[in-house]
Amino acid sequence: MKKIGVALLGLGVVGGGVWEILTTKREMIKRNEGLDIEVVKVLERNIERCKQLGVDASIVTQDMDEIARDENVDIVAEFFGGVEPAKSFLIKALENGKSVVTANKEMFSKSWHELEAAAKKTGAGIYFEASCVGGVPVIRTLTDSMQANEITSLKGIVNGTTNYILSKMSDEGADYETCLKEAQKLGYAEANPTADVEGFDATYKNSILSSLAYRKRVPVEKVYREGISEVSVKDIEFGKQLGYTLKLLAISKLVNGKIEARVHPAFIHANHPLASVKGSFNALYIHGDNVDDVMLYGRGAGSLPTASAIVSDIVFAGGKDVHRRYFWEDEIEVNDDDFATDFTTAYYVRIAINGEDGALAKVAKAFENANINVKNVLKKNETDGEYLVLVTEETKESNMKSTLETVKGLSCTDDICAVLRVEN
Amino acid sequence: MKKIGVALLGLGVVGGGVWEILTTKREMIKRNEGLDIEVVKVLERNIERCKQLGVDASIVTQDMDEIARDENVDIVAEFFGGVEPAKSFLIKALENGKSVVTANKEMFSKSWHELEAAAKKTGAGIYFEASCVGGVPVIRTLTDSMQANEITSLKGIVNGTTNYILSKMSDEGADYETCLKEAQKLGYAEANPTADVEGFDATYKNSILSSLAYRKRVPVEKVYREGISEVSVKDIEFGKQLGYTLKLLAISKLVNGKIEARVHPAFIHANHPLASVKGSFNALYIHGDNVDDVMLYGRGAGSLPTASAIVSDIVFAGGKDVHRRYFWEDEIEVNDDDFATDFTTAYYVRIAINGEDGALAKVAKAFENANINVKNVLKKNETDGEYLVLVTEETKESNMKSTLETVKGLSCTDDICAVLRVEN
Repeated sequence: MKKIGVALLGLGVVGGGVWEILTTKREMIKRNEGLDIEVVKVLERNIERCKQLGVDASIVTQDMDEIARDENVDIVAEFFGGVEPAKSFLIKALENGKSVVTANKEMFSKSWHELEAAAKKTGAGIYFEASCVGGVPVIRTLTDSMQANEITSLKGIVNGTTNYILSKMSDEGADYETCLKEAQKLGYAEANPTADVEGFDATYKNSILSSLAYRKRVPVEKVYREGISEVSVKDIEFGKQLGYTLKLLAISKLVNGKIEARVHPAFIHANHPLASVKGSFNALYIHGDNVDDVMLYGRGAGSLPTASAIVSDIVFAGGKDVHRRYFWEDEIEVNDDDFATDFTTAYYVRIAINGEDGALAKVAKAFENANINVKNVLKKNETDGEYLVLVTEETKESNMKSTLETVKGLSCTDDICAVLRVEN
Repeated sequence: MKKIGVALLGLGVVGGGVWEILTTKREMIKRNEGLDIEVVKVLERNIERCKQLGVDASIVTQDMDEIARDENVDIVAEFFGGVEPAKSFLIKALENGKSVVTANKEMFSKSWHELEAAAKKTGAGIYFEASCVGGVPVIRTLTDSMQANEITSLKGIVNGTTNYILSKMSDEGADYETCLKEAQKLGYAEANPTADVEGFDATYKNSILSSLAYRKRVPVEKVYREGISEVSVKDIEFGKQLGYTLKLLAISKLVNGKIEARVHPAFIHANHPLASVKGSFNALYIHGDNVDDVMLYGRGAGSLPTASAIVSDIVFAGGKDVHRRYFWEDEIEVNDDDFATDFTTAYYVRIAINGEDGALAKVAKAFENANINVKNVLKKNETDGEYLVLVTEETKESNMKSTLETVKGLSCTDDICAVLRVEN
């Protein structure tokens, strides 16, 4: 039986889960996959944690070089957060011919091309299923099940924290701050929630998924980003009345040969399969030109679900003699021309009006003048004022921006309170 | 570049789609996968169809032996329906060292172990992604993404015809016959719809998916089967009022080490992700002990979606030098003890009552005496009579059967009109 030696970098929440699975499922994996996978090295400073998990002290080290030199290590699996030292450690592993498995989306999205260059030198493999949508096989689906397709769009709920908060705001009518606190209490949000609630985490994942889908490096900086911290429960409620559900979406499309990648709150129809993805669950909706729509749904985070993806990668990598390369040289180069900048999308707009007669006609006229079709209007008299709520058909973002300037200048308008995109 | 010669058996709806994709995507697959896949033989009697698709007459044959002997053929892909001659042809291919790709769920579910035995002799590979849930990568997920998990249950909407009919009955309140006719008109149902509406098609898929999930042959005969032709729109409507959606589910569970596999209409909670799978869409809900719940959703049929899975299998098989074996000898043997016969499940029951006083108390007492908890009751006065509708908690099927005999014998009972399972 083929023996595979694994080094685990870090025994935190995910690393601990990987240790647990590799220990409890070793015999099952031997029998089912014909691979004997053994953890031969662990890089971890917290000796108490090692003891707690029952890791033999003789395999624990704090020296990455020792791991990189160890001939018994075939695969290095990494569970740090942040770019460094993860990136340097994995490049060292690759340069020493060891395949790498990572759950670190920030590092991977920012450094994929550098890891790729290091892997090419030795033929080692790069595996990153756990970096996006936890235990759900979105990467494997894109690499090994969509070969007959040109992928033309991806839409994902790829961050559990924001989905938990938005689901709670929608179901209970509670405001953002209250729901964030609840999420923090339950461990769904970090003490400093910025990476999640401001959409950074989702841009890392969008970058990875888009790069894979379009076979072209989509750097994190090319992913437009807006978070959910400014979302008002009032708009979630009005959207609901119009048949929409608000989600933080990672969207990416190939439009006229240009890649359009973005992360922002967006309304989707309540009967869209993504609308029923609630709480901390995640999902990715893929459109391929032959397969049509495919959706993958499941736990986007958590110790064992994420560890399940890591172990799957270890087994998958362990069974391969030749590893996949993801890009050709020309696909790694970033060319500004490959990316769209002025997106086309539909909109939800909430306008505070001051009670002047004929407000709806004036506002409607401004949209009409800009060739923006209004699909739906709500006029709301709330305790804090009067609002016009409009849902438009698709238009260029630049056109919407200038139209909203015009609307803002109308005598009937007090303020533009909310502008949210609608994804059809 | 590695060259892969493919023979296509049949150029019908799916075979034609495969021909189209392999032709239009040949360059894309060369670039992305490093494989040059060429159709070198086609087995098809309909010469007009070959011409229509632009297949060169020189590669068309009607002789399977010619294909089996052809050294340029590496992979044989089959798109017949029914067991023979598909089975004999594929065994011949495997015995000649050619890997096989099939979309034929009936043949594969009934003959997998025989194909497996033939493949073992030569080391050839068996690929069948397209046999279950069309273009959705359910097989690849079970084989290549769940290695860290013991799968403990599967629940699937795996037949588009029945899902279309039940969705329409539910949305429009139309009866079964009307919706079947509409499905036939739209090409979602065959002229003879038995294989779909009586659940046979779903048992084939349940057999394949369960065998893979539990690594144990689950013969089609071991899958309990009930179709949808007896379903009344009245029960769909009453179920809806109780918060449930009716689906034809392929269910399979590992309960106390025994496999419980069944296909029947079942109510699921309206907020379960499977409830939002509408029309001809399919989905599979997988529970693994580490990954928790995963759902895969998409098109379960159709020319290009199914062909997408076939081509994915061809690419996947073409890239492998060593092919996977699915079972050990002892896993192929069928042992009656491995299968549960008296399932435990919750129930929806509709009872026609005759207006006698105290009917609810009498019926409730009968359930109570059998230790069956009633969760929910509706009393309905319809134009055609009076009904008690009950939803129970889980009990053994044998217990429910004998209890219903008792209820039927009560003086207040006219008839037991419907007994449907509820899947929690």
